[in-house]
Amino acid sequence: MSQNALPGFRDFYPAEMSERNHIVRAWREVARRYAFSEYDGPPLESLDLYTRKSGDEIVSQLYTFEDKGGRLVALRPEMTPTFARMVAARANALRKPVRWFSIPQLFRYERQQKGRLREHFQLNADIVGEADVTADAELLALAVDIMKELGLASSDVRARVSDRRLLQALLLHAGVPEAQLGVAYGAVDRMDREKRGDAEERLAAAGVPADAIRFLFELARPMTADALRAEYGGHPALQAHVALLDRYFAHLEALGVADWVQLDLSIVRGLAYYTGIVFELFDRRGEFRAICGGGRYDSLLDALGGVDEPALGFGMGDVVLGELLRARKLMPAAAPALDYWVAADDEALLPSVMSLAAALRTGGHSVEYALRPQKLGRQLKSAAAAGAVRAVILSATESANGRATVRTLADGSERVVALAQLRATPGGYGVVRGGDGFADVR
Amino acid sequence: MSQNALPGFRDFYPAEMSERNHIVRAWREVARRYAFSEYDGPPLESLDLYTRKSGDEIVSQLYTFEDKGGRLVALRPEMTPTFARMVAARANALRKPVRWFSIPQLFRYERQQKGRLREHFQLNADIVGEADVTADAELLALAVDIMKELGLASSDVRARVSDRRLLQALLLHAGVPEAQLGVAYGAVDRMDREKRGDAEERLAAAGVPADAIRFLFELARPMTADALRAEYGGHPALQAHVALLDRYFAHLEALGVADWVQLDLSIVRGLAYYTGIVFELFDRRGEFRAICGGGRYDSLLDALGGVDEPALGFGMGDVVLGELLRARKLMPAAAPALDYWVAADDEALLPSVMSLAAALRTGGHSVEYALRPQKLGRQLKSAAAAGAVRAVILSATESANGRATVRTLADGSERVVALAQLRATPGGYGVVRGGDGFADVR
Repeated sequence: MSQNALPGFRDFYPAEMSERNHIVRAWREVARRYAFSEYDGPPLESLDLYTRKSGDEIVSQLYTFEDKGGRLVALRPEMTPTFARMVAARANALRKPVRWFSIPQLFRYERQQKGRLREHFQLNADIVGEADVTADAELLALAVDIMKELGLASSDVRARVSDRRLLQALLLHAGVPEAQLGVAYGAVDRMDREKRGDAEERLAAAGVPADAIRFLFELARPMTADALRAEYGGHPALQAHVALLDRYFAHLEALGVADWVQLDLSIVRGLAYYTGIVFELFDRRGEFRAICGGGRYDSLLDALGGVDEPALGFGMGDVVLGELLRARKLMPAAAPALDYWVAADDEALLPSVMSLAAALRTGGHSVEYALRPQKLGRQLKSAAAAGAVRAVILSATESANGRATVRTLADGSERVVALAQLRATPGGYGVVRGGDGFADVR
Repeated sequence: MSQNALPGFRDFYPAEMSERNHIVRAWREVARRYAFSEYDGPPLESLDLYTRKSGDEIVSQLYTFEDKGGRLVALRPEMTPTFARMVAARANALRKPVRWFSIPQLFRYERQQKGRLREHFQLNADIVGEADVTADAELLALAVDIMKELGLASSDVRARVSDRRLLQALLLHAGVPEAQLGVAYGAVDRMDREKRGDAEERLAAAGVPADAIRFLFELARPMTADALRAEYGGHPALQAHVALLDRYFAHLEALGVADWVQLDLSIVRGLAYYTGIVFELFDRRGEFRAICGGGRYDSLLDALGGVDEPALGFGMGDVVLGELLRARKLMPAAAPALDYWVAADDEALLPSVMSLAAALRTGGHSVEYALRPQKLGRQLKSAAAAGAVRAVILSATESANGRATVRTLADGSERVVALAQLRATPGGYGVVRGGDGFADVR
């Protein structure tokens, strides 16, 4: 039997699972603070749910098959179609704005490349029912606050934002013919992966005037909102878009995340998909792929599920985020999982060991003990190997007097305490740290 | 587009997700107290991982297909084969006993029946590397403590236990020929779903003597460990098995779960699989299918992954458990998710609203506010609809004085507090309850 998972799939041993849970906990915690409610859908859906959004080309990238009932089905490659389906099914009953998040595992059959995975976990956060840029600011602040929660700073991560409506107005203003907007977006999108000459040739061949081409390459660079306003804020065809972006940046300032954000009109993202402000989060050193991407997709819910509501959302995967946290030494080592190891110097004390373990667990502590008779020294070695914070040592003599020794493993310090008090120790969720408040009865 | 999930698959809207998370939280919390470490594997595995354990018959119940690389793959129908594969791959490096748990979503293509699902979530908890019944007791105590954590009592749920080794010895002792043990196990297993006459006929035809058949039907009824000991404890071929079960019950007593447990030799479970103590948890009224099932499978890891280690484990699904909790009124309603709604009586205060929301979120609180300009009354209605515990009301006059009104929505009581104090309010993870310690500055 193969001892390996399928190519592109991960096994999460406890150490890797602890890292995954660290990220997932941050996602859940910050989403909770932003009053987003968690939902989930099936990992298997009808194939047409995906082709309807992305066309038939997507089939080549999916895990898709015919089930035993003759249905064409696919493992979910993204969450938005399921989200749209679920919102559409209850569109009228849902309180607006809908603020939902989910943490699905997603699947793509990508041609195998080094380190390229065929599954990942992805936080999806979406808002439905609000057209104003307040919602756009709220959504980006959520993404940025997740970075903060994980210990990243604005010197580590940058959010680049653009606005599809503004970009379109600027390109038209510069003389790009309406019919050539698609070609122009493509050139903007590929600007950092393509030779300028190649793009210029293609744009010229498509009929984009030379002036407009020059403008396009000047435009698609990081700039400040102030520079944008100074240059275009007075132009009738542009000022409404500039004012909207101004309000957006003011909201980001009020929400405390403006330091993280950079206007960058070269951020285009899915052409057939996004309709307004779009954004991506990157590590500032440029070592990794995008951490997160999203934006406003006001027409998509209508196309997918027949619900004519404005909407916006983002996806943030666990893989790049994990790489970045490890590179910045921000991924905590698996915490010692154990509050107490209960040991005894006499095999006959096993019932007392078990009974004390049960009492400590009832108090919320995590507890382990040797499942087979072992010498005390061996038990204490196991306690250390398990990462226990404290060992409780029962001995035949102390036990008869209703007492036990509590040893703190980090420094070897010991105290004798009343068993009754130990049994009643209230626990928290998590490892006991610092003083335990036991009275020393020696 | 269909607005439905595939047949047998569930959509988890926030209300259902909250119920699922309630169960998952209890699973994780109790597993943590028992010092089990979480792991996970891929939801898609090679088909042969499953046929190796269960034979080719299982293929008809699987979601299985050929992937684009020509591999026969299947959505995981159970976790044990993945667990065995992962343990085998690192068998020598792992600290023993291995105490691991996982919460996979599992998939079976069952013929569609009313209410029958094709997916569920299942807690899997396993111990590897300990042959003694201490481990069996520890494992069952974990399952029972999950019941307690969820608010169930021993009057709600019963654990029925048996021992395959004892049952075999008893059947041999009663005169069942060794070659007919399989037929006898089958009759025991089906005892409560089959007419006694039919079973007797089949057993007799297979060559089981009439005395042994009578014995078999007397045996497979709930009995006490005391009665077992009194009747068989002195018999040379049986006493070792009886003594083992006695120690098991004594351990369950020490672990504080003996009240929940009933010896019941009619519990057989997977014949080709279990080798020792087996158990199932049922609701005592008998309204639902089994909540949980498991036991000792000392040969399976060797057969599956080439690791000759004793092992035991159980699976506990979310579906029956959820039905039981709802029936016993123990499933909590989705908790109010919101600590604060920030409102204002003037549209111009939006930056202050956002800034206060950001400060409260930094303190760990969950916060929402209106994303579009609304009259104050409307905002407070939204706050109530969102289940907010408190509303903070900013007004143009109070705001200028650095103050805000905090209204507790449950009783409408209000206090005026300093904005600076409010911004610095430390939060917990979760909803603020009880007094908040604000100084009233009015």
